[in-house]
Parts: sequence; structure tokens; C-alpha cells
Amino acid sequence: MMLELLPMMTMNNGKRAGVLSLLVVLLGAGAVACASSPVEPSAIAAEPCPILPSTGPTSLVAPSPLPAAVAPPALLSWREGDAKQRIQAFVRDVTDPSSANYLEPASRIAVFDNDGTLWSEQPIYFQFVFAIERVIKLLADHPPWANKPWVQKLKKDGAKAISHLDEKALLEIVALSEAGVSTEEFRQLAHTWLTEARHPRFGRPYTDLTFLPMRELVGFLRQNQFKIFIVSGGSVQFMRAFAERVYGIPPEQVIGSYMATHYEIVNGRSLLVSEPQLAFVDDGSGKPVAIDRIIGRRPVFVAGNSDGDREMLEYGTSGPGPSLGLIVHHDDEEREWAYDRTSHVGKLDKAWDEAALRNWLVVSVKDDFAEVYAPPSAL
Amino acid sequence: MMLELLPMMTMNNGKRAGVLSLLVVLLGAGAVACASSPVEPSAIAAEPCPILPSTGPTSLVAPSPLPAAVAPPALLSWREGDAKQRIQAFVRDVTDPSSANYLEPASRIAVFDNDGTLWSEQPIYFQFVFAIERVIKLLADHPPWANKPWVQKLKKDGAKAISHLDEKALLEIVALSEAGVSTEEFRQLAHTWLTEARHPRFGRPYTDLTFLPMRELVGFLRQNQFKIFIVSGGSVQFMRAFAERVYGIPPEQVIGSYMATHYEIVNGRSLLVSEPQLAFVDDGSGKPVAIDRIIGRRPVFVAGNSDGDREMLEYGTSGPGPSLGLIVHHDDEEREWAYDRTSHVGKLDKAWDEAALRNWLVVSVKDDFAEVYAPPSAL
Repeated sequence: MMLELLPMMTMNNGKRAGVLSLLVVLLGAGAVACASSPVEPSAIAAEPCPILPSTGPTSLVAPSPLPAAVAPPALLSWREGDAKQRIQAFVRDVTDPSSANYLEPASRIAVFDNDGTLWSEQPIYFQFVFAIERVIKLLADHPPWANKPWVQKLKKDGAKAISHLDEKALLEIVALSEAGVSTEEFRQLAHTWLTEARHPRFGRPYTDLTFLPMRELVGFLRQNQFKIFIVSGGSVQFMRAFAERVYGIPPEQVIGSYMATHYEIVNGRSLLVSEPQLAFVDDGSGKPVAIDRIIGRRPVFVAGNSDGDREMLEYGTSGPGPSLGLIVHHDDEEREWAYDRTSHVGKLDKAWDEAALRNWLVVSVKDDFAEVYAPPSAL
Repeated sequence: MMLELLPMMTMNNGKRAGVLSLLVVLLGAGAVACASSPVEPSAIAAEPCPILPSTGPTSLVAPSPLPAAVAPPALLSWREGDAKQRIQAFVRDVTDPSSANYLEPASRIAVFDNDGTLWSEQPIYFQFVFAIERVIKLLADHPPWANKPWVQKLKKDGAKAISHLDEKALLEIVALSEAGVSTEEFRQLAHTWLTEARHPRFGRPYTDLTFLPMRELVGFLRQNQFKIFIVSGGSVQFMRAFAERVYGIPPEQVIGSYMATHYEIVNGRSLLVSEPQLAFVDDGSGKPVAIDRIIGRRPVFVAGNSDGDREMLEYGTSGPGPSLGLIVHHDDEEREWAYDRTSHVGKLDKAWDEAALRNWLVVSVKDDFAEVYAPPSAL
């Protein structure tokens, strides 16, 4: 096919925020500063997680799925209880060919939010830490940025300025952190940062702060022939820097916010280069929009943790067939964090109310997770 | 994750067409009118194609991939010759673990244009026929459309007006054909049309005018653990109405142009409803942009037929590893159509020149396809 394009643009400037809204993250003045507590000891003896591949040598190659014959007992890090039982019952129901709710494997689409659902998101979304550290490094080479109102704060406080920046500044910093390099190069930069950076509270790589029970859940669904997608507000290229290695989720099953990019040929090689502008925000109603566009099937399993996942949960659980919506409730300040209705990060308010009405499963980190993170030795 | 959105919009109004350009299809005044010739007899005795599922009862469920053990000889409808040999040699090379060019299955990404590559596109892109027929049906219920300059032509000539409409009108008609209904409903409308409509020259359903050798090629690659994506200028929802049934390509592996959509809850059920506006045109440099965003890996096998596939071909064949770019050259006016450098539909000019420079394989419909379409009896 060959369609001619004119460099002519129209925009929907109507009332709807649409897919091109500016991302504005509400981080109030009280955003939590990074604490430097030592590593929290695990409350419960660590068990190795045989379901997921280890995070050994970095590889962008998809791990082979485990053959069903050697599948280990699933959901080891979930405490026995209603939550675990309901997940198991749902999966049994839709995979049993004799069940009225049986779903063909092709229909077994599962979507997971990332920040706050598959890994932690406190004291601030991890990608923001990456972004501010990267922009600080870039300052010297970008004299025109000197006029931006947040530059003085960065020069004065370095990465600690993150707790004093307003939403507009953070938004701009996120965009600038990704712009000007090819998407391939950006993923490499993100990957390098993830291997080097340490979370201030736990002193561990950020990818260690993925929830072991949720990783087991991803593995359990995969073993039951679900196709797993991440559908999250993070940058799609940032998430691809670790999703395959950590979750076993390949790049083409990662959906996120994305930058405007343009096509370039550099030394004979084609590249996509990011512009300093978010083109799509994969959050709120943007999530079902993206799912419909990219996956093209209504998911039957949806996991989230915040109001940003509300529409995705509605979408997945309002189809004609069986479905399960799941919300991770962060209520464990000892092992992780406790926050919900008034949090500046991962606010869970409307979606929590709706959970009761729509029978979404609310999972308690405190009560339902026997382990929160995998022990360092197993990673 | 929960990000707050403001209903504020920015646009890149720079020189680049970007992802939000209006689609403008250049159909000159001389666009070919639909002829009503009888069905062309096949020049060569039909052979059944055992590789692909039959297009029997309509189903939106993915056919199970054939186990490798019972895989039939591939590429039956390709004549022996350089083209077939080169395809086979490439696949052998990248799937042989002892080869220096061996690729892990996860890296075996293949992308196919649809119009002119997997099915015919003459005398006009098939989706345009659907669009104009649908808009004619909708006219009575949309009095405000009466002011549009193309309405009188539609009222006078019906679907035959397609040959007298300029690009702006056709663009608007394509957008209006999809707008105002949910994406699920639109796919059903497209599906119904595809089962009922007949191509004017061949008197067969449009999905019969898929190229048997190319469908075999899709099956051959799939058997060799390639993951196949359609990356085409057609509407993603239109293509999903038949891609799984006809090509065995599931919705999440279909990438196309798409409408702006918004999220709605109707009677408790979430839907995505299209607006009368194309949000992304998956053509030209938009193809690598979409591949990078949605697939997130550089494809190693790229098939196209026109200048609209040029950047996608460059992208796939300029990576560091092995790759194969393929162009279908329409040079068989007896069995299909013959057109290239000056065609209003599927123009092949710059990409043809570049094929020689970049060693893309140019496949001749006349010489390399033993069969063009599957015989009606086998469909």
C-alpha cells in the first residue's frame, strides 16, 4: 500500500483529554523525600522462586517458557486465603474445557499495570529518578535549558531536587530525559541505570523491588496459556529495558506512554529518534484506548493498584464473559509502604470504591503476600 | 500507577508530518473505475494449500498453529527460481543453530504490508469500497453531511462516485465510515461487508483475493517460529475483521492506521468509540515509528510492495544482523494487475530503485507465483 501524506495536521481540541494530553503528574509540595534506611530484613524466611528466570546476565532475548510438565507449584509467595483462592478458582474455571466459562487460549489476555502493581512506586515513580539523574548529567551540554525554572534547583540540590519540583517541571524532565537519542540508545541508557542505581530505602537495584507474588502470578497465568501484557503509565521504552529480563514479558507485550519519534537514517542505519514531547499517556482512560488499539481484544484478567487503572479494570471486567479484576492495596509500611486515598503517588480512591461495586479482588500486601520482594540472594 | 491528566493539548506543528498528519490519499482524476469483468480462469491447475487454515465458518478465534511434525512442504504455489530459493535460504540460515546468522526465535520478527502485499489493491484499496458503501447508507441519518461537497456525487452515482472523488473527500469518507460506533461494532460491520461484497472484476469475496503464495509464506515463516505482524496503512480495526480468519494473524499482531477513540460506558459496559478523525497513519515513515512503538524490536523479514513500505524495508534491513526485504512487483495484468512507477494505487518507484541498492528481493507476480489466488473451491 502507498498512501501519500501531506505535512498537514489537525487536532481534536475538544473537551476530551484524548490521547495527546500533556502528562501532568500531581506531586504536591509534600512529596516524600528519599529516606536512606538500611535494607529491611524479610519477615519470613526466603523461598527461592522457581517460576521466573533469574535476573542473571542481562539479555534482551526472551526466556523460553517453561514446559507445563515441569511447572512448579504456583503462587508460593501468596498466603493461603481468599485472594489466592479466588485467583486459582478463576484460572481453573476459564481453563477447564468442561467449564461453562472456558476460554480458548487466544482469549486469555491478561494486562498488568507496572508501577505499584508489579514493582514498588515509592517514594516516587522510579522512572522519575532515572529522568532527573539523566537530565542533571545533560545540563552542561544543553545551555538553552539554563532558562528553565527548575534548572537552578537541580544545580543546587542535584537529584534531591526531585521533592521540590512541581508537576510541570517533572513532566518536562521526563520528556527531556528521553529526547534526542534513538529509542535503542535510550533503552540501553535505562538498562545501564537500572543495573547501577540503588533504591534509597532498600539499597537494592530497583528491579529487585518487583513483587515476588505478582511475578509468580504472571508466571502462573503464563503457564495457563494467558498472554501477558504490561499496560502502564511508564515510558514504553523505559519498561522494555527490564520487562523481559525481570518478568519474562517481551517488548511487543509492553504498552506504555510514548514520545513523539521521527525516522532518521544515520550512517545507513534507520533509527527512531525521540522528540522532547510525550505523544501518548497510557494512563486512566488512555489504558483501554491503548489496549483496544494495540491488543485488539478485551482482556479477561486485569491487575492494577490505583485510580489510573480504574478504566482498564472496568474495560476488562465489563465484557460478556468471565473476568477477574485485581487491585494491589499497599497497606504494609513495614515491608513496603502504606498509602491509598490521599497519596500523591499511586492514589487509590475511586477505583477502591468501585472495587466493591464491581467485585474486583483487593489484594492486601500485608495479609496476602507471604513475601513482598524476592530475597537478594535469589536475584 | 496513577498519573493525573489535564485536558490540555500540545502539538508538534513543526516541519515533520509526524504521527498525526491527516491522511491524504492522492487519487488523481484518472482513478480507475471498477470494471465488471467475469472471473478470470486460473492459468495453472489449482493446488490445494495445506499450510493455511481454510476460510470456512467465520471465527475470531486464532487457529492453532500446525505442529511442526506435520508441516507440509512449504511455498507450494511459488515457482522454482531465485525468489523462492532466496527465501528458503534466508529462513534456513537464521534458523540453523550452527549458522553464524542464527537468530533466537524471539528475534524472528516478520512484518507484512497488507494492501498489494497480502491481497490485491486494485482498482482501488478495498477498504475504500467498504467506506463509500457504508457512508452512502448513513447519509439519510446524518443531515449535516448534506453540506459536504461530495454528497451530491454520492447521491447521483452511488458507489460508482468513488472514481470521481478527490483525495480530501475519500479521506473524510474513510473517517466517517468508522466514526460514531464502537470499535467492536465497526469490526463486525467490516466483517459482514467482507462476507457479502464481491470484487467487481473477479466476482469473489475480497478476502479471496489474498495471494496464495504470500499466505504460504506467512505459514512457512510461522512454522519456522517467526512472529508475524501486519504493518499496513489500512485501518487496524478493518484489518482485524479478517486477518485472523484469513492469515491466522491474531488482532494483537495487526498494526494499522487508527482513529481517535474515546472511552465510554454504555449500559455498564466499557467501549471505545471512534471519532471522525484519523489519529495515526501507518504508512511511509509511520511504519517504522509504529513498529518501534508497538513491537519494540527491529524486524528481520519485511515484505511490502510500494513506496509506502520503503522506510519499513530500510528499517528492517539496516540492522546489525541478517535480514531479508521483499517487494511484490505487480507485473501480471492477466492474472492480477500490472502497475508500478506511475500508479495512483500502490505506487512503486523510489522503493524499486532502492531495492537494487539494498539487495531487497523483488518478487514478480508473473514469474514467481505459480498461483496468484487460491481457487474458489479451496476457500
